Amino acid sequence: MASQEIDALAQALSRLPGLGPRSARRVVLHLMKKRETVLQPLLRALEMVEERLKTCSTCGNIDTSDPCGICADPRRDTRALCVVEDVSDLWALDRSRLFPGKYHVLGGRLSALDGVRPEDLNIDGLVARVAAGGIDEVVLAMNATLEGQTTAHYLAERLESYPIRLTQLAHGVPVGGELDYLDEGTLAQALRARRPVG
Amino acid sequence: MASQEIDALAQALSRLPGLGPRSARRVVLHLMKKRETVLQPLLRALEMVEERLKTCSTCGNIDTSDPCGICADPRRDTRALCVVEDVSDLWALDRSRLFPGKYHVLGGRLSALDGVRPEDLNIDGLVARVAAGGIDEVVLAMNATLEGQTTAHYLAERLESYPIRLTQLAHGVPVGGELDYLDEGTLAQALRARRPVG
Ligand SMILES: [Zn+2]
Ligand SMILES: [Zn+2]
Repeated sequence: MASQEIDALAQALSRLPGLGPRSARRVVLHLMKKRETVLQPLLRALEMVEERLKTCSTCGNIDTSDPCGICADPRRDTRALCVVEDVSDLWALDRSRLFPGKYHVLGGRLSALDGVRPEDLNIDGLVARVAAGGIDEVVLAMNATLEGQTTAHYLAERLESYPIRLTQLAHGVPVGGELDYLDEGTLAQALRARRPVG
Repeated sequence: MASQEIDALAQALSRLPGLGPRSARRVVLHLMKKRETVLQPLLRALEMVEERLKTCSTCGNIDTSDPCGICADPRRDTRALCVVEDVSDLWALDRSRLFPGKYHVLGGRLSALDGVRPEDLNIDGLVARVAAGGIDEVVLAMNATLEGQTTAHYLAERLESYPIRLTQLAHGVPVGGELDYLDEGTLAQALRARRPVG
């Protein structure tokens, strides 16, 4: 029987967010049924991502090069740094083309519930970048959730001894809202009206 | 930017049942974050399935060989044929080890709603196997849904001129129930009490 290959694929699929073990088995059968139109394109796309995409060792962005296109761009303002929870937030902000500086991706948010501690996020990397100097402003662009705001407070404390302007996104991001679900207009407004922390 | 690779993967993922475009983007980021533990195992498992698994040209089962292990097994009773909608149903029935014969996978069910017509299913293949002779009994093991039962009626008509006993699973399969969601006990009962069609 083909159970070994199918179980392995079902197990790998069930680790994706939103797919349980039962739906994973259904997906395997769907993949087998649609070999040319679903399985093979998925396989090629995964191979491309696996081969070509890198995590930027400077900022945590995902790109085809390390350092990423944003970190390597000489037209970017190196004195402004925008800190985000996830790569999806970086992309959402950068699509608005309103922030001229560079980014720093934490890789998540502090969460007592999910057991995410400061050492689980790329916070030391952020502090090191700020400590290295040359940065005037750090924008804390956390999600407007309780955990996002807790993370912003923690970062503000960690960065308070440095000679920088610490700002956060203006109200305009709806409470409870996740950045990458917002339209660009709302994001643009929130970024334009950003204000000092505290 | 890495948008080309990521868009391609998000698009390939969004073709999986249960994943929309928005969740597909989240899955891409999850895959990038968990490269060693999620992306690479998924890639290897897909490659295995793509390389090793075949659809049996006799019965439609999925296995590492064509003909499949069931079709090639000399201990199986070639005079009894069990017709199922999908490979998942074949597996669910075969796990019960109560059916000694062979199988035939239609690859779906007739559905006016989804535009599935007789020529979209492997019905000609079934009729050809029956017409070739040597089969005494055909068990129509469709799901106990309206569409499953419509399919069973259609098959009964297509097969009525052949000298075979046509049976279907006994009540015991709950109305509206899908075979591969049932426990083995219920399946076993339904199979044991199978009765002539009509
Ligand atoms: Zn970078
Ligand atoms: Zn077979």
